[in-house]
Amino acid sequence: MRNSYPVTAPLDRLVSVVMAGGSGTRFWPLSRKDEPKQLLKFFGDKTLLRTTVDRIAPLCPPQRQLVVTAAHLVDAVQAVLPELGPGQILGEPAPRNTAPCMALAAMVAQQLVSDAILVLLPADHYVADAQKFRDALAIAVQHAERGHIVTLGVTPSQPETGYGYIQLDQEVGEGVSKVARFVEKPDFETAMRYLEGGKHLWNAGVFVLRADVAMRALDEHVPAIGVALGELRAGVHRFDSEAFAAIVRVAFRHCPSVSIDYGVMERETDLRVVRLDAGWSDVGTWHSVLGLRPAGEENFVHGPVSALDCHNSVLISKGPYLAAVGLVGMAVVVTDKATLVLPVDRSQDVRQVVDEVARLGRSDLL
Amino acid sequence: MRNSYPVTAPLDRLVSVVMAGGSGTRFWPLSRKDEPKQLLKFFGDKTLLRTTVDRIAPLCPPQRQLVVTAAHLVDAVQAVLPELGPGQILGEPAPRNTAPCMALAAMVAQQLVSDAILVLLPADHYVADAQKFRDALAIAVQHAERGHIVTLGVTPSQPETGYGYIQLDQEVGEGVSKVARFVEKPDFETAMRYLEGGKHLWNAGVFVLRADVAMRALDEHVPAIGVALGELRAGVHRFDSEAFAAIVRVAFRHCPSVSIDYGVMERETDLRVVRLDAGWSDVGTWHSVLGLRPAGEENFVHGPVSALDCHNSVLISKGPYLAAVGLVGMAVVVTDKATLVLPVDRSQDVRQVVDEVARLGRSDLL
Repeated sequence: MRNSYPVTAPLDRLVSVVMAGGSGTRFWPLSRKDEPKQLLKFFGDKTLLRTTVDRIAPLCPPQRQLVVTAAHLVDAVQAVLPELGPGQILGEPAPRNTAPCMALAAMVAQQLVSDAILVLLPADHYVADAQKFRDALAIAVQHAERGHIVTLGVTPSQPETGYGYIQLDQEVGEGVSKVARFVEKPDFETAMRYLEGGKHLWNAGVFVLRADVAMRALDEHVPAIGVALGELRAGVHRFDSEAFAAIVRVAFRHCPSVSIDYGVMERETDLRVVRLDAGWSDVGTWHSVLGLRPAGEENFVHGPVSALDCHNSVLISKGPYLAAVGLVGMAVVVTDKATLVLPVDRSQDVRQVVDEVARLGRSDLL
Repeated sequence: MRNSYPVTAPLDRLVSVVMAGGSGTRFWPLSRKDEPKQLLKFFGDKTLLRTTVDRIAPLCPPQRQLVVTAAHLVDAVQAVLPELGPGQILGEPAPRNTAPCMALAAMVAQQLVSDAILVLLPADHYVADAQKFRDALAIAVQHAERGHIVTLGVTPSQPETGYGYIQLDQEVGEGVSKVARFVEKPDFETAMRYLEGGKHLWNAGVFVLRADVAMRALDEHVPAIGVALGELRAGVHRFDSEAFAAIVRVAFRHCPSVSIDYGVMERETDLRVVRLDAGWSDVGTWHSVLGLRPAGEENFVHGPVSALDCHNSVLISKGPYLAAVGLVGMAVVVTDKATLVLPVDRSQDVRQVVDEVARLGRSDLL
């Protein structure tokens, strides 16, 4: 519980924590270990990371922004976000999922602003209407200020089996409900029932909560994280120092790998969800990329591509010329080093390909 | 008519004329202007040109071989065929189809051997059984020696619409018939009738005839060629000189573009055809390449390719890694500069792509 009543308005205490740790194998060969999805320019000329930060920036200016990424990507992230100062880009030495990321961010956020409220959000999602997204966040912040853990839920537009769902409980405000429970990715029939029932939203992976609430929830549900990262508390006032980065590297190695969803959300009983209707996608597979093509376009095309008589296809090249003829529902992705061709509805099999590439000893391609 | 009876056996007077002038746009991007189909390694580690020359070499040693190619390809052909001496690789300054090529070859062949008999053959075809091919040629030479123009005809194995056909007249020997007529590429129903009727063979584009007969036939049916190339006669005794090459360059520019089929075969009345059952293909499209995959193989694969759950597909890479998943009946061709993807049964549309590439001003890709 808080010791003193904060003097600044809740929105002025909002710290954005962009989670940019994804390895992005699902978009191989476009995404690679050193250039994961969040660093790709899918739509126009900006990376997904840059777009994510620009979307939140009107609520959180650079001095209230954090990015958590993989240690080997810190320089690449800094190049995309030159406005961030020392210590605002936190590098994890090993992937530990999102709950340790939340713990680290909560500690550092409190150094940026007193009584920080966190908005944790993935670096690589798509939102068509940024203003509606910020409007939903502003509502979420009001509820987070009162101590609630708040998430954003997207009204389903199709029976999607690739997303987790949030089951709604009673409404507590305009577009805000209590959460009955979090639901894992459903099968198609269940997804269809959710769509028709109107009682389920897609879990957008965006969380809004006070920093102190985050620490309390983690200590309660996943105490091992607090143990592993405990040493950081003493040094966090110098979060912008190399010494602190060194402590982070050691501490993370001993930290369990737990997601916010599993570690916290599924164990908390008093969660709130704010409805988001802003044209959202997790851009999770080539199939979802196809869904984001401009209205009226037959295909999603990026780069030097000629498509003759092609339909419902994803055609991307990062350099070499791509000529596609008579394709229906195909994904073709070309880079200097590798080409991938598969039906869009087999997007999930990219993982098999990545495994095969590793098996062949071609780590130069990953 | 001949002045004196030749003293050497007909087979010892056989001069092979490999016609290697094709631009090979049908195999773009694998084939390019500077690396047409005959210089590609489709099957194993030898170019189609090298394989063609090796196939004929037991009948025609290097000193009785000629290759006619495009002027800009002479060096590349010489690199593939280092055993050929000066003047044995003839460079055409501009494509003039096969009849002028036959005229030039007939003149030069008579410098290589008295009373030369020519076998003109494409540089880029596939023959499974080289010995059967040579056996058929040996029979053809016997008939050519007597003054006949002889062609090879392949027993059809399917209702192929991509080949010209030869309609058989009465048989004049074991596997040798008179030719009733040459037939253009038929539609599918006609091709099916040909297949069932047993009276039609595929035109393999291989011609065997005496050099003097070739000159006589050309003068009779396409006199413009004799006019254009007339100057060459005076200099042909120095066919291995740069001076002769210079005369060829000028003469060819004024020569009409005519095929042997159209200019000679369709106008001659006393043609013979020798039946060839040696597993032949003109390797004319990706579709025909697919037909040449090793027995029991699902796909035709060449280069660094991983095919997961792919069927009846052509998967070729000249360098970059190609991963294909769940493809059926597709052709995917990858080079450093370009990738082509299309259904195998739309192989003929490669031409559209090449036109598009030219339209885009990307001649660097052609």
